[in-house]
Amino acid sequence: MALNPAYEAIGKGFVQQYYALFDDPNQRPNLANMYNAETSFMTFEGIQLQGAKNIMEKLNSLAFQKINRMITAVDSQPMFDGGVLINVLGRLQTDEDPAHAYIQTFVLKPIGTSFYVQHDVFRLALHDCV
Amino acid sequence: MALNPAYEAIGKGFVQQYYALFDDPNQRPNLANMYNAETSFMTFEGIQLQGAKNIMEKLNSLAFQKINRMITAVDSQPMFDGGVLINVLGRLQTDEDPAHAYIQTFVLKPIGTSFYVQHDVFRLALHDCV
Repeated sequence: MALNPAYEAIGKGFVQQYYALFDDPNQRPNLANMYNAETSFMTFEGIQLQGAKNIMEKLNSLAFQKINRMITAVDSQPMFDGGVLINVLGRLQTDEDPAHAYIQTFVLKPIGTSFYVQHDVFRLALHDCV
Repeated sequence: MALNPAYEAIGKGFVQQYYALFDDPNQRPNLANMYNAETSFMTFEGIQLQGAKNIMEKLNSLAFQKINRMITAVDSQPMFDGGVLINVLGRLQTDEDPAHAYIQTFVLKPIGTSFYVQHDVFRLALHDCV
């Protein structure tokens, strides 16, 4: 049981780093380094995926080229294994589509002095005017 | 490392049970049983709280009486300590206010044959039309 007191900075830093890769189609394949080959879970719009290979197949299959992203809130909490729970609320506009709110939750698992994404849940809030 | 294969049912059942208590002002104080005295974290609209007492002070201070809640999606994932990560996307209308989308993330921690809420993050999506 070792809470990481830097959870807030880790959460904000991770979100910045992750989306810098995600939002650039040329860099998106490098997200593979953030997931574990076996023990990473992703739920993408309700579709469950496990392992870096399956997750990256999904992320690389996304067809849009241009992403306009606005982060509304990043809420982070320290976890008792030294990990960090990160909740992102934001807005996302891809290519010429209208903007949608989205939520993404990450659980970062410590590995040495770094982290990998053990859990990742993504949902667009398509049908709500809020 | 023991993934609980019933994570999907546990997630859906928990969400139903939690909101049944939350949405009834007379039952809301019973939510105290779902949090640990020391090791539960909540982030409520960016405000960080730790421990059942502080969390319940916040939840009991919410002034609205009437809640109209619609669950849009519940995404659950099994965790390696036997816990469950639950992501809820929904809509919430309190008293006569307009409806807002919200997100709530729970991390359930196993304790014997049951669970408690170790992590809880709540955000209203106030300013987005999605």
